[in-house]
This record gives sequence, C-alpha cells and structure tokens, in this order.
Amino acid sequence: MGRIAVTDGMSEAAVKVLEAAGHEVVLQHYTPEELLSGALADFDAVVVRSATKMTDEAIRASRTESEGIGFIGRAGVGVDNIDITTATECEVVVCNTPGASTLSVVELTIGHLIASARHIPKADRTLRSGEWAKKSLRGTEIGGKRLGLIGYGRIARGVGEVAKAMGMVLHTFDPYISRDVTEASQCTLHDDVDDLFRLCTHISIHCNLSPETHHLVNSERLSMMPGVGADGTICGNHIVNCARGGIVDEAAVLAALETGQLSSAALDVYEIEPPAGNPLLEHADFHGSPHIGAATLEAQARVGEEMVGLLIDYFNDDRPVSAIN
Amino acid sequence: MGRIAVTDGMSEAAVKVLEAAGHEVVLQHYTPEELLSGALADFDAVVVRSATKMTDEAIRASRTESEGIGFIGRAGVGVDNIDITTATECEVVVCNTPGASTLSVVELTIGHLIASARHIPKADRTLRSGEWAKKSLRGTEIGGKRLGLIGYGRIARGVGEVAKAMGMVLHTFDPYISRDVTEASQCTLHDDVDDLFRLCTHISIHCNLSPETHHLVNSERLSMMPGVGADGTICGNHIVNCARGGIVDEAAVLAALETGQLSSAALDVYEIEPPAGNPLLEHADFHGSPHIGAATLEAQARVGEEMVGLLIDYFNDDRPVSAIN
Repeated sequence: MGRIAVTDGMSEAAVKVLEAAGHEVVLQHYTPEELLSGALADFDAVVVRSATKMTDEAIRASRTESEGIGFIGRAGVGVDNIDITTATECEVVVCNTPGASTLSVVELTIGHLIASARHIPKADRTLRSGEWAKKSLRGTEIGGKRLGLIGYGRIARGVGEVAKAMGMVLHTFDPYISRDVTEASQCTLHDDVDDLFRLCTHISIHCNLSPETHHLVNSERLSMMPGVGADGTICGNHIVNCARGGIVDEAAVLAALETGQLSSAALDVYEIEPPAGNPLLEHADFHGSPHIGAATLEAQARVGEEMVGLLIDYFNDDRPVSAIN
Repeated sequence: MGRIAVTDGMSEAAVKVLEAAGHEVVLQHYTPEELLSGALADFDAVVVRSATKMTDEAIRASRTESEGIGFIGRAGVGVDNIDITTATECEVVVCNTPGASTLSVVELTIGHLIASARHIPKADRTLRSGEWAKKSLRGTEIGGKRLGLIGYGRIARGVGEVAKAMGMVLHTFDPYISRDVTEASQCTLHDDVDDLFRLCTHISIHCNLSPETHHLVNSERLSMMPGVGADGTICGNHIVNCARGGIVDEAAVLAALETGQLSSAALDVYEIEPPAGNPLLEHADFHGSPHIGAATLEAQARVGEEMVGLLIDYFNDDRPVSAIN
C-alpha cells in the first residue's frame, strides 16, 4: 500500500477507490519552494495536472537514496511540465491519461471553429450591449472549406471525423504518423507544414509543445494562408488552438488580426497563463477560453478512473499501460 | 420581361443575372404604409426577406383588377410574414428558397449547442474582463446525451447528422413526418412533444412558427427536462432556438435559468426583434445572436441563385419548383 500525493486535485470517486484499495491519499498543493525542499519525499507517488511543475530539481528533491516517489501521474495529456529525462534517470515512471479528455477537447475545438466563423462571442457581446449587429455579423460556413490539422493524434482525428461530417476537407502535417492512418480517414498528409498554411483557410493545432513546435504558427506562415476557401468563398483565415500555449506566436496572431490576414483567432491556451494584460485579448476578432479543453465533468471522471488503474498497476509492480519512459 | 421589386436585398450576382435576362430589378425597401398605398402595384413580382410583411392588406394593395404582382418570392425559408391564404385567393404564387440556408443554420445550431455546454461566450467575456475563470467554467460534453429535435425537416436532419457524429442520441417530434424518414437516420420519433422534454437534456427547435407552435416551449415543458444525460452525467438542461422567435416563451426561459432548471439558453431569434430591453439578455447563462442563421456569404449566394431560377420559371409561365400555394 502506498502514500499518494495529489497536488492539483482529482475526482472524489477516484480518491475513494484508491482509499478503499488501502492507499493513503493526501490532497494538497505544494509551492515550487516546498517541492524543492522535499515535500514529496515522504510519498511513493504523486498525481499532478498542469499547475505542479515537476522540474529536474523538483524530481530530485522528491527522491532520497532509496525512497521517495517512484511514480508521477499526469492527470491529463501534456507532460511538458514534467522533466522526463530526469524522471527516467531517477527510475521514476511517468504516466499520463491520454484518452480521458479526447472527446472534450474535440468538442471545444469544433465549438471554437464555428464560433469563429459565425462570430458567436461577438454576437453575444453586441446583443448584451443593446446593439442588433445582424448586418455586420455575416459569417461564412465551415462546410466546403479546407481544415488543416497540425498533429494527427487522437484529438485531431476526432476533430477530423466531426469536421468531415460537416463537409470540411481534411489536411494534416504530422511527422510521426503513417500515411495509412491518414488515408484511412480521408485526410491528406503533407510532408511540409508550410503546405498546410498555403492550402487551408482554417487551421487547428493538435500537437505537443516542444522546441520543435514552439512558435510553429508565426507571421511568415500566417501570411501564406489563402483567405479563399476550397469552395471559392472569400472566407478569410482562421486559427484555433486548444492544444498548448507557445505553439502559436501570439504577437504574430495579433498583428495578422490587425492587418486582416486573419479573420479570427480562438485560443484556449496561452504562452503565459493566465494571459493577463495580453493585448490580443482586446481584439474584436479574437475570442478565447481559459484552458478549459479538459474541463468537463466527463473528462475529469475518466481521468480519475484511468489514474486509479495506473496507480494500482504501479503498486502491483505491473508496468502501467500509459507509462511513457 | 418583368418588373421585379427587391425590398430586403439580394446578392449582386443574382440581380445581374436577372438583368441580363432582360428583367428590370428595383432594389428598394418600402414601409408598411407605402405597401398599403400600392407601391408594389406597378411591379410584376416582389422578392422579400423577413423584414417586409406581406399581410392581407399589403397583398391586396399590390394588385389592381388585372395587374400588379403575381409572384412573391421569399429569399429564405419561413413564410410567416406572408399571408398565404390571401395570396392564393388573389392568384399570387408564393415561393421560398428552402434549401439555400440549410447548412448555415445547421452550423450555427451546432455552434450554439457546444457554446452552451462549454460556456464559450462566458469564457470570452470573463477573459476580456481580466478574469481567469477556469474553475467556474467547467462544462459537460454533448456526446452521450439525448438531443431532442422539435421538427424534423431539412435543418433538423442536418443537425442530427452532425450530432450523431459527435455521439449524441437523436429524438424528434414532428407530426408531419413519416417514421421511415426518422428510422433511416436513427432518430426516435415521438407522438407527444412532452416525451422529448421528459427525455432530453438538450433541445433544439427546427419547426415553423404557427398558432400550433407559438410558445410550444413553455414553463411546464421546461420543468419536465431531466437534467441528467443518457450517460448519467448531471449536465443540466439546454435549449437552442435558431428557428423562429415566438416558439419559445422567453419569460419562461428566463425563469427556468433563474431557478437553475435550465443551465443554458441560446437564441438566435426572438419574439420581438430586436429584443431591446429584454431582461433575458442579461442573464449570465443566456447567450444569443441577432438572427444570423442564414447570414453567411454562402447562404446568401445560394438564396440569390435559387430565386433567379424561380423568377425565370415564373416569367416563362412554368410553375416554380418551390411554389407553396
């Protein structure tokens, strides 16, 4: 039986299952300073979301010679807040819950795509201010347009399925995927990400944040976007990011909104969160949400269930199914 | 060759085609008083959207004993602004363009459904006001929930196809549809509209406004909604109306938002448009748009193309395909 620290919350149901299995669960958030002074060294495992940063130093401080944490569970998908190299070196297994939030992020992405093309947040804003802006809120359909998916993992494929049902034409760039996968879902795979920007009026980001993808969406690429849909409609260019902040250069997006090269930008994630004082948030054709891609009752329940399974495997000396090191 | 009055606008391309075919097109809006004093009696045909009300008196004033308009074209779907009985009696053919805006309304409906379940307009509002409301904006997925479609015409079927691709379970009430049609699209047809409210956490309206459907969504029916999704999630109840104002009792919706029986309400149409001073617009869990269901470049182009075809048939003494009387 183990001692498990849960630093960024977990569903109540999951905590109960772990306790019923004989584990001790401590729900407490620790500051970076507390992590560095060894607050986790008394535990066998830690479960984090994105708020707790398991840096090289934080991981080393959570280990003693023979004891301390041997498991870092990321309740969610992105592990950019965990130093995997150090974890591996310290023989700490790192697991995430990759499938739990897929549907929630897919739905938010589709919601932002349509909200962008049809000005839904602006419509609500003008209506509340007493304005009947029917004429200035003319939009365009997403059906008949090319959707460029940057990354073609679970979430992108889910977005693609719905977008196809709405009549969009799928293109993707993903250097880690085989052509069989994209062909099976009628999505054209490109070897050069620039091709996506040259072809697509609607681009949605579904890759990890890494040195390779940092500011992948920059002003040069935004300037390549065609503004004219596959169906000939002058629909402008639209960017959605429900993946990770930092992949999009926010200053470049603001500049492109200002020149009109971008007709809309919808972000759920930001390079700095919260994005206080970011002038992008004031632009009329921007709309955003505060990193709520996985913020649904369903995703949080599934994350808890998956994490319980991973922890139970770990304490049984089985390799957890989603171990990534 | 005919004289055609276009009172609420039409796409430039459509006007050019009519002129090239030898017709005279006058783009001018007339007040109700002008209509009653015979402003249209000099024309052979009139094309309206929803702003021009072709009442009994307006139609009679547009006819002389042997002359005047013989064709009323509704650039759009709903003909509740045209007195069909009087038109028939006066031998005036009434046509609409039923297919032109289908996809645009389908997309806006899906957009509002997701925006409701995931608080997209509220997310944007709080973000702009400098608040990072991640925790209070937890939503629910629409996948796994029952969607009740009131009316099962073209638009409802289009919404149903996308909703199915997103994992929703379809139910409908439509006294004018055959069970073959609903079964073919895996949608359960109910004989009593109350069953839809008892079963469905998400309801979207896709019927005409008529005495039969006026205030069809009332407080009694709203109070029947289950609040628990087909998948067991406590997702609350959600109403979307992109059809016609007046089908929803707006006071009942506001009351249900206030008690929490409704978690959200999204309206594109209102009993009085613009809905100035309507307290519903101030509720945090309401969001709306100013009757922009068909307000896309694509729909407006298609409406123009369809209307040209109808007018050309009419002036060739052929019965226009979408004649409804």
